Amino acid sequence: MNNPDLARFSINQMTVRQLSLPELVIACVELGVRGVGLWREPVQAYGVEAAAGLVRDAGLTVTTLCRGGFLTATDPVERAEALGDNHAAIDEAATLGTDTLVLVSGGLPIGSKDMHGARERIADALSVLAPYAAERGVRLAIEPLHPMYASDRCVVSTLAQALDLAERFPAHQVGVAVDTYHVWWDDRAPEQIARAGAAGRIHTFQLADWTTPLPEGVLTGRGQVGDGAIDLRQWKGHVDAAGYTGPIEVELFNEELWARDGREVLAETADRFLTHVIK
Amino acid sequence: MNNPDLARFSINQMTVRQLSLPELVIACVELGVRGVGLWREPVQAYGVEAAAGLVRDAGLTVTTLCRGGFLTATDPVERAEALGDNHAAIDEAATLGTDTLVLVSGGLPIGSKDMHGARERIADALSVLAPYAAERGVRLAIEPLHPMYASDRCVVSTLAQALDLAERFPAHQVGVAVDTYHVWWDDRAPEQIARAGAAGRIHTFQLADWTTPLPEGVLTGRGQVGDGAIDLRQWKGHVDAAGYTGPIEVELFNEELWARDGREVLAETADRFLTHVIK
Repeated sequence: MNNPDLARFSINQMTVRQLSLPELVIACVELGVRGVGLWREPVQAYGVEAAAGLVRDAGLTVTTLCRGGFLTATDPVERAEALGDNHAAIDEAATLGTDTLVLVSGGLPIGSKDMHGARERIADALSVLAPYAAERGVRLAIEPLHPMYASDRCVVSTLAQALDLAERFPAHQVGVAVDTYHVWWDDRAPEQIARAGAAGRIHTFQLADWTTPLPEGVLTGRGQVGDGAIDLRQWKGHVDAAGYTGPIEVELFNEELWARDGREVLAETADRFLTHVIK
Repeated sequence: MNNPDLARFSINQMTVRQLSLPELVIACVELGVRGVGLWREPVQAYGVEAAAGLVRDAGLTVTTLCRGGFLTATDPVERAEALGDNHAAIDEAATLGTDTLVLVSGGLPIGSKDMHGARERIADALSVLAPYAAERGVRLAIEPLHPMYASDRCVVSTLAQALDLAERFPAHQVGVAVDTYHVWWDDRAPEQIARAGAAGRIHTFQLADWTTPLPEGVLTGRGQVGDGAIDLRQWKGHVDAAGYTGPIEVELFNEELWARDGREVLAETADRFLTHVIK
């Protein structure tokens, strides 16, 4: 299958995590999906070199690796461990042949209420990680996460904050991940997408829809494309207008989708992408 | 009891919703709490005039009435009903002798993805409601709700958006509600508090702490003062610096607090206010 309308479509591995890596690769080939966003844990479990070969031999592009980050610790040992883990993530990204490592910055350390300090520690860590990544052909993409994750996962809640951090570094080193799930509510996001695009800092564009009620813990409630409140076509228009021509990755964490046949979910997701985003 | 440090403290009725209105009034008097924020449903159940008399006779101040709003419907019948209900809410606020009606603006109509249109319909409704309220000595306080409520409860997610709406009207007609739970993640909020204060548009200041994991539906997870990630003393400093001298209302929706003895929760909340905000 070779559908030109799917040329920019990429499936994030987490969307169909019920598929093993070989199952995912086969399904992509059969369905004409050319891009995959991978996650470190399943890739490590399969073997990074082996995963790289599997994907490369199938002619697939690894659009992103998820994820590095968690750079907000104050404890020196924890900070050193986080830096080490991020160096490893960069190496893995390079091995997989992807140019983009997505960063989830990290939340507040236990007991801390200091958002500003946490954001500054991210910048400190980036000053170490960004040159290391660039030497290996890997760009870091700071992903602002929805403000509902501000305390425990990511103190970077808006594209404006992510760009304020990214702009301390060259664009080929540090940019942003634009994920509709995280930014859709933000009326400033379109102007920030323009700002990011003008500087060549949109390093990935990810789609998920917003559905309610949110589940306990709010991690696994991302809606299938077209099921929710987000005008995804409009957001694609924003990144188009900002000059972004790269892959468009669908990344869903959704218990209902995970309970279904993974190949069927992948086919449905590609179809939704065509219907709700492209056509 | 007459604790001057509690002079600005107000307990929002929802925090101790297990108490009947008479129980709440007695507990406030005994504990030296002088302000209460009331909710329409329990007040209506008791009788608005009777509630007004009960609270007035006890020497309590009604700091706010919660809540009007839900002004985003597109259906003409639903819009007319919403306006009628808000006129009633304004009348009730006037009867209770409070100068502030809190507005939760409303989410997207079913099937709609048009955030901008929804926000404009709020402005349209305010142009009808604000003069009506002002004639009765009632100010409308637009409450930006956390972005996790953007689709289903409130398309106004930031203080900046709330002020953009409020500033279409005189300050004595329309201002904002600053609630730490909703704005704490927003690094622009301090400057927006200054903007609101300079214009006399901080119509209420409410406290709740941010705790995780969030419960299913994310409505009843507000943390007791001091239990979470928010530097509440710092936020009080922001409204202080903006010239706000009014009541400080603690509004918690929390299943664990609701399961306890209401008077004990009220006493604890007042104590937390003193420990974590005032001293």
